[in-house]
Amino acid sequence: MDIKAYKKSFEYSYTFGIFPTIELIKSKSEKVIKVLVSSRYKTDSDADIFELCRKYNIRTEVNDKLINKISDKENNFVVGVFSKYECELNDDESHVVLVNPGNMGNMGTIIRTLTGFGLSNLAIISPGVDIFDPKVVRGSMGSLFRINFKYYDDFDAYNSSFKNHKKYTFMLDGAVSLKEIRHDKNELFSLIFGNEATGLDSSYSSVGRSVFIKHTDRIDSLNLTIAAGIALYHFFD
Amino acid sequence: MDIKAYKKSFEYSYTFGIFPTIELIKSKSEKVIKVLVSSRYKTDSDADIFELCRKYNIRTEVNDKLINKISDKENNFVVGVFSKYECELNDDESHVVLVNPGNMGNMGTIIRTLTGFGLSNLAIISPGVDIFDPKVVRGSMGSLFRINFKYYDDFDAYNSSFKNHKKYTFMLDGAVSLKEIRHDKNELFSLIFGNEATGLDSSYSSVGRSVFIKHTDRIDSLNLTIAAGIALYHFFD
Repeated sequence: MDIKAYKKSFEYSYTFGIFPTIELIKSKSEKVIKVLVSSRYKTDSDADIFELCRKYNIRTEVNDKLINKISDKENNFVVGVFSKYECELNDDESHVVLVNPGNMGNMGTIIRTLTGFGLSNLAIISPGVDIFDPKVVRGSMGSLFRINFKYYDDFDAYNSSFKNHKKYTFMLDGAVSLKEIRHDKNELFSLIFGNEATGLDSSYSSVGRSVFIKHTDRIDSLNLTIAAGIALYHFFD
Repeated sequence: MDIKAYKKSFEYSYTFGIFPTIELIKSKSEKVIKVLVSSRYKTDSDADIFELCRKYNIRTEVNDKLINKISDKENNFVVGVFSKYECELNDDESHVVLVNPGNMGNMGTIIRTLTGFGLSNLAIISPGVDIFDPKVVRGSMGSLFRINFKYYDDFDAYNSSFKNHKKYTFMLDGAVSLKEIRHDKNELFSLIFGNEATGLDSSYSSVGRSVFIKHTDRIDSLNLTIAAGIALYHFFD
């Protein structure tokens, strides 16, 4: 296996840093190919990566040269190498839907946030950034490994698969203010967000309830991650 | 004036891109030194930078070489060059306080978000990143130019200047859940957030009301910008 700087076409990817690597091992140990460790790595009180790998029967390799070759920029003392995998969304849980997400850091932050607010299912409407890019993994702080995700060719393909989910589309010209939304705790929902630059087009105003997050006109719009964070907080009980 | 890639020690800074440059001109035209325009810039329906600069009596210069020299990475067709300035916070308005902010993009996003939720005053407890760094300006989408900001040597220096502001400190082990906070609309408040990595230390639990944003234990903490966004939304009427 010849390990190189990440490309989307690879069948494997990387976790950079101790924290996302621990999340990988704890959540998806069967996907780990090996863990690279820098000679400068020092076991601290919180986590011994060697001990953890032994426990999960995962191979470790001290290899500074290889870490430097594949790392994006920072000093990485621990790098996980893992096989990519596919998931199915649970139809008895609520979802987040990202339509054409364009920024990897943002996708990672949204994954971390939805995990924090009790959700575990993410639909991505293509085209969208590569969820296994190390930048997404890093932005998610490894919470990517705790969720199910699935890419759909278009919104209809998603929508027809989850007819029982009540759809909330977040739009600048949404019909209802988020503060007025009182959702039934037994109801399954899908929170749907558009691309960073373009949002959701007008066709999304009729797929369910269209929602706006009230703000002043001193800005054009909220940042996508902020809007998603506020919505997820609102729906979290 | 010899214009170079930005350094903190400079007395001037830059806006990269048409949108932040328009915000600069509209909010702080007296601070603009000149506006650099790429030969590839095309006037579109939304905004004619040459017309705007004429209106505000601002000098423009078509200079691709200089733009490339000072730009951080992307294709910038418009760059504003402006003198840095100092501000005072309004004592009859509510504030955001960032204690030792460490990430420029995050600070920009928080500025954009607080502007969106009706606030205009930001205190920064030193050390903290340089608010005039072009990365902050970009992250704020130019809303930096609509707010007042001030650096303080330590929290006490801020706190003693604004004794009438009710202080809310956002901490993982805060005493009260944000959902339970009902603030009086006539009350001045300060929303206080810690550094991205370390949060607020325990001394902040007694400066006012300490608040937590409830989330599951599947993540360690929310991203700073997400926490600030949720708090700002909650306090916005």
